[in-house]
Formats: sequence, structure tokens, C-alpha cells
Amino acid sequence: MQKQVEYSEAIKTKYPEQVVIAIAKDKKGRANPVTLGWTMIVSGEPPMMAIAVAKKHYSIETIRHSKCFTIAFPSSEMADAALFFGSKSGRDVDKFAEFDCATEPAKKIDSLLLTDAVANFECTLESQAEAGDHIIFIGKIVASHTNTDPKKRLYTIGPGHKLGSAS
Amino acid sequence: MQKQVEYSEAIKTKYPEQVVIAIAKDKKGRANPVTLGWTMIVSGEPPMMAIAVAKKHYSIETIRHSKCFTIAFPSSEMADAALFFGSKSGRDVDKFAEFDCATEPAKKIDSLLLTDAVANFECTLESQAEAGDHIIFIGKIVASHTNTDPKKRLYTIGPGHKLGSAS
Repeated sequence: MQKQVEYSEAIKTKYPEQVVIAIAKDKKGRANPVTLGWTMIVSGEPPMMAIAVAKKHYSIETIRHSKCFTIAFPSSEMADAALFFGSKSGRDVDKFAEFDCATEPAKKIDSLLLTDAVANFECTLESQAEAGDHIIFIGKIVASHTNTDPKKRLYTIGPGHKLGSAS
Repeated sequence: MQKQVEYSEAIKTKYPEQVVIAIAKDKKGRANPVTLGWTMIVSGEPPMMAIAVAKKHYSIETIRHSKCFTIAFPSSEMADAALFFGSKSGRDVDKFAEFDCATEPAKKIDSLLLTDAVANFECTLESQAEAGDHIIFIGKIVASHTNTDPKKRLYTIGPGHKLGSAS
């Protein structure tokens, strides 16, 4: 039976939710990673993915500047990195300089891949749409990578940035 | 270590993925449910969600017609309904007439709620964006409902519509 409740209560049922780390370079050429829970595939042919980024986030500037971004699926071992990248702003901090996280150059776009992620998708920015307090960036996937070692994905398993793996 | 692979291979790492059922009425007033894997929250204030619907799907017409839709989080017991709603077209079949699935009227929009779902969100259509072979519908949540009994959410746990629960 359904009972009408506040949105803040009902949305708790979304967990566990997949987490991604999006990476784009700013105008100084510095790669800026941000942890995001709001992402989805949006096209099969061509393959495309979307991410929703809060309007106040520095990532808005970096993605608009470089017109491309990486979407990495962090592994369950990367919870500390995901928390750091999601709680600091690239306006104040060079996140990759301050947190030890292995990276390698992307192949088709001017961005980085996360070496220990489950997978990395290189995206060119195709369009963007406004939605309330977020901007939706729609990217076309131009290269895909997986980890040579089997890894479990990182999930948000409850409110308040509680992270873990689900399988 | 990352290794470049085909997209079709890399995207297998997305599972388990949450499934939703979107419902909108067509011009005959018939509610049409469709099962979707591609969905995300897109705004916190106001609360908004987006769904990506294949351009060829009948649901495109129904959502554009009624300018509102329900997003239901099906429970793990609803795998058969999710498969039926996701594999038939509302052009050919009255899905709610052919598959026994308890519904009740939405409170704020002209749509239905799924009685046995984990949660239901009533959305008004705010905007839409094109992305490859899909249309992204962006909805503002105007009412939220949860099940009075605790239920587990339904997930796609692997390619080929393999459904199950994750926790």
C-alpha cells in the first residue's frame, strides 16, 4: 500500500546508488575530479552518458572549458578518494596533488583516466540542459577502458555519503 | 591497470543497475507503463528526476501528451511485471489490462501509482532534451509515496534483462 510522504523520506529508497567520478581539465590545464551520484546512460547508438552537476560546483567551469570529460566507475577500494573528490572544491584545492590516486592520460580526449577504477569512459561534450539546481552534461563516449583486474564497483549504500560495494 | 576495450564490453560493469517503471496516460486516457534502466535524480531543490526513453517507444507520445508521469521504484517481487512492461509496446497492448498489477490514482497528476512498488514519484514534465537514440524527460517531483511495508528494490543484475534485488 502506498502512503504519501515527504520527498526527503521517499528518496531514501534509491540506495544503493552507483557512484562515478567525472574528470575535466580547467583553463590552467589542471585535471579536476568530482564524485557524483547522479548519472545515467542516455543513448545506445551512439553510446552516450549524462551526469548532473550542481551549478555551484567548479566542475561546471572545467567541463564547459574543456568540452570533454572522463566518467570513471570507481572500485570499492576507492571510497576514500571518492569522499575526498566529492567533498573538496577544485577552486580551493588541486585534488590530484593532495590525494594520492593513480591516473593515466586518456586516449582520445584531453583528460585523465583513473588507473584503479573498474572502468573509464572518455566523453566529448555534446549538449547540456538545465534542471533546477543542476546542469545535465550529455557526453558521447569516444573510448572505453576496463581494469585488467576484476574489481567491484563503489556504491552509496545510504544517506550521508555512506559508501560500500554491492553485488 | 586500464585496458582499452569496446564500449559493449566496458558497459557490462554498470550492473547492478536500478530499474524504474514510468507511467503516463495516452490521448485515449489509457495509462501506459514502461520499464527503464536509464534514470537519475537531476536536482535537489526543487527535487527533479530524469528518465531516458528510446525514441521509438510509445511512451514518448504518452509523456508528451499528458505532460506528466509517474516514476515508480518496483519491488523485487515485481520482476515479472517489469519484464512485461519493458518488452511489450503500448501501441499494441493495453499493458495494465493484460498484466495483473495493482494500481491506484496519483494524487497531484493525472497518472497512476503502482501499489506494490517501493516508492512512487509524481512528476510534471519540465523539459526534454535529445540524446542520440533517446529523449531525456526532466520531471519536477510534486508528490512522493512509499510502501507501508518494507520492500527491496528491483535491479538489473546483468545484461539481457536479468533481474533481482541488491542490498
